[in-house]
Amino acid sequence: MLSSIFEPASIAVIGASGNESKWGGRILKNILSSFKGAVYPVNPKEAVVRGLKSYPSVLDIPGDVEMAMIIVPAQSVLSVAQECGEKGVKGLIVISAGFSETGNAGAELEKQLVSVVRKYGMRMIGPNTLGIVNEPARLNASIIGQLPVPGSISFITQSGSLGLALAEWTIDTEIGLCKVISSGNKADVDDIDIIEYLDSDPLTGVIAMYVEGITRGRQFIEAVRRIRKPIVAIKTGRSKRGAKAVFSHTGSIAGSDEVYSAAFRQAGVLRVDNIDDLFDAALAFSCQPLPEGNNVAIFSNGGGASIVAADECERQGINIVDLTKETQEQIKKIVPEFASTSNPIDTAGTVSYKIYKDSIEALLKDPSVDAIIVIYVHTLMSNAIPPAEAVVELIKKSKQERGKKPIISCWMGGAGKEEGVEILKSGCIPNYPVPERAVKALAALIRHKEFLEKVKAGESREGKT
Amino acid sequence: MLSSIFEPASIAVIGASGNESKWGGRILKNILSSFKGAVYPVNPKEAVVRGLKSYPSVLDIPGDVEMAMIIVPAQSVLSVAQECGEKGVKGLIVISAGFSETGNAGAELEKQLVSVVRKYGMRMIGPNTLGIVNEPARLNASIIGQLPVPGSISFITQSGSLGLALAEWTIDTEIGLCKVISSGNKADVDDIDIIEYLDSDPLTGVIAMYVEGITRGRQFIEAVRRIRKPIVAIKTGRSKRGAKAVFSHTGSIAGSDEVYSAAFRQAGVLRVDNIDDLFDAALAFSCQPLPEGNNVAIFSNGGGASIVAADECERQGINIVDLTKETQEQIKKIVPEFASTSNPIDTAGTVSYKIYKDSIEALLKDPSVDAIIVIYVHTLMSNAIPPAEAVVELIKKSKQERGKKPIISCWMGGAGKEEGVEILKSGCIPNYPVPERAVKALAALIRHKEFLEKVKAGESREGKT
Repeated sequence: MLSSIFEPASIAVIGASGNESKWGGRILKNILSSFKGAVYPVNPKEAVVRGLKSYPSVLDIPGDVEMAMIIVPAQSVLSVAQECGEKGVKGLIVISAGFSETGNAGAELEKQLVSVVRKYGMRMIGPNTLGIVNEPARLNASIIGQLPVPGSISFITQSGSLGLALAEWTIDTEIGLCKVISSGNKADVDDIDIIEYLDSDPLTGVIAMYVEGITRGRQFIEAVRRIRKPIVAIKTGRSKRGAKAVFSHTGSIAGSDEVYSAAFRQAGVLRVDNIDDLFDAALAFSCQPLPEGNNVAIFSNGGGASIVAADECERQGINIVDLTKETQEQIKKIVPEFASTSNPIDTAGTVSYKIYKDSIEALLKDPSVDAIIVIYVHTLMSNAIPPAEAVVELIKKSKQERGKKPIISCWMGGAGKEEGVEILKSGCIPNYPVPERAVKALAALIRHKEFLEKVKAGESREGKT
Repeated sequence: MLSSIFEPASIAVIGASGNESKWGGRILKNILSSFKGAVYPVNPKEAVVRGLKSYPSVLDIPGDVEMAMIIVPAQSVLSVAQECGEKGVKGLIVISAGFSETGNAGAELEKQLVSVVRKYGMRMIGPNTLGIVNEPARLNASIIGQLPVPGSISFITQSGSLGLALAEWTIDTEIGLCKVISSGNKADVDDIDIIEYLDSDPLTGVIAMYVEGITRGRQFIEAVRRIRKPIVAIKTGRSKRGAKAVFSHTGSIAGSDEVYSAAFRQAGVLRVDNIDDLFDAALAFSCQPLPEGNNVAIFSNGGGASIVAADECERQGINIVDLTKETQEQIKKIVPEFASTSNPIDTAGTVSYKIYKDSIEALLKDPSVDAIIVIYVHTLMSNAIPPAEAVVELIKKSKQERGKKPIISCWMGGAGKEEGVEILKSGCIPNYPVPERAVKALAALIRHKEFLEKVKAGESREGKT
């Protein structure tokens, strides 16, 4: 049923405006500049909006309307929703604020709104949402400035403006998104609905969430536990002040932080502590396979950076594996005599296409290695491009041979580094600016793999009894 | 005495080359393109290098030589250093590797090198260093690609390449540096010497360190404890693998991590966990005053972002203070009715020069507030410039009135945000891309203030007894 919201054939924009500084104007513009289906502005005060005939009410629209966006003052939402129901609209996105987030009167209004939605068998995102984006369907039904870069990360955000800022930030940083959902007050469609929809969406590879509070806790755990796609979440409002602010922000009760941690753990949701970690992990999931195990090899041209990575591995519980003798022998042949060929491998400054390619190839073949972190410390005396080309070449060539060994990279330094980073991006190698972030992203892949194994083990036990 | 290394009148480059792909070529080029004093290439195989007369030995140079850079194979370093001593050179930077970091024979060679240095009363940075930079003196005696952006952060790095990459990265990100010191094997000049020199340097405001291991531990604590300038350090090699790699990297013994934590705490060194935190904190120190206390006000146009900040404050032990009634009343007059005027303050999306200026001004006047975190969540519907201008205006106007209240900012979002960030930079407001990093940087200022208070209290007690 959420497909009516995410993949509608036709959209009514109720509260449409020709003025882009108004939300009804911005949203209409965004829909028109992206969406190829039928779009109907609704505004009783205008005859024409953005060159389109404007209707006094959704009931006056001649054709079918599959989805309606509601951007009218809170006190008018109920009657507008009622009309949508009568019209046979299937899905609503209610942008309007002034509901449960404002107190008791608003909560009552929200309850009535949900009754109307349910009465007509509609589904509703919001109220108090900034809308949704479905990049593959070229639908920007939100106030986000433009469609994101294509990708397999779907992002659910309970905070409108933060989600908006982050979605727009992904465009700058070229992190690909599939769907963006500002979930708002979650009066009807809630996290469970959205996650189940995204689970059934073949284009979503990983789900990233900004959460202030979860409703239907037990069901959330049960529903999400069945899902195999990785879900990474930042849950805020863990502090006393934060929890208070959460309530006035979206009307959610933040709840005890320990309860959330436990619930997320049971549900297999990877909880991260900060915004950087959220997108760092999502990026790794979106373009690398899950490792078979916990054993990593670190390859670097700089000793300092590999030590930083090794420290973070230990902090994250990742094992820096002993390489086989064969692997070490092979790498010894390629790197200079004074390089360190035990893990973490440090070429002591030397960089070339061949050194990176042959060494990493040896690591890919080493059965004791489950994942590889490749570091390149850029200086003006070296070239960031050849080692990046080597990594991308390996990823391309030997997908079968490589099997399930993720490669995570960290190209660090100043001017000239970016040219290598661009090549890594084009090859779908997740790259991070400092080693610690690369390691934490890999840790997320490992944690998810472990969760899947645990669930599988549980299921096979259940099958036997 | 270190002034001969950092502010020499004349420099000999021993092992100079016309070939920039060689270290002796790169370093000569860097010195010539920055330094205005006398420069003498030394290379017995060349008559002219880069258009300058080349001398067979430092002893053949007609004028005085205050500092010499040594870039010759390890086995020749001893005799070259001996000649430098005979010549009356005061300071050496030994770039050459192949000393204690390579094992026993190298350690023996290093010992002999130190004997020569001491015999002639010279001081030496290295061996196994990538050199030093003194931006205010326009001296780039390193392989770093260019002089950094001017600033008050001095950066000591035990890892050459990592330090190099980070120094070059600061240029891209416009983080201002004063001195950069690649300390290498620290055979003669060690961390204590460098820190004491930087403490006496009026242009250094904060010291950032990448440390693999500290020598002279007890003296380190005693010496550094006397220093009032903030010192932020990342200490690596805390993991088993990392410690092993540290040894083969610079010959240091990483030592027990707990010992380091305790030593740093006693010495008042702020230990951070990762590279981002190191420069985030250094940036805040370099341009904002220390707060009088632990009480922060958070001001934001987005609820989600302010909740993220509030959570991180609690994690960092920062108090989100109750604002006075007057302050709240004043802010109520400026922000929309539906905004939240209790701390964290959330304007519920509304942004203007006036809202930011008047609200933050009220917070600056509130005696219960020690520091302010200003957040702006950018969307295409708002303009990142006016709120940035408001913050910079306040910083400029009321330096006396503002007293010691640091302002830390977080402008987040995509395209259009940068124009605001540039204004903040020009006003020396440290800006961070996510709220958590802004809070952590502020936490560093508070920790340092607390350390200074503790030391002062200890001293006054000692004075009484």
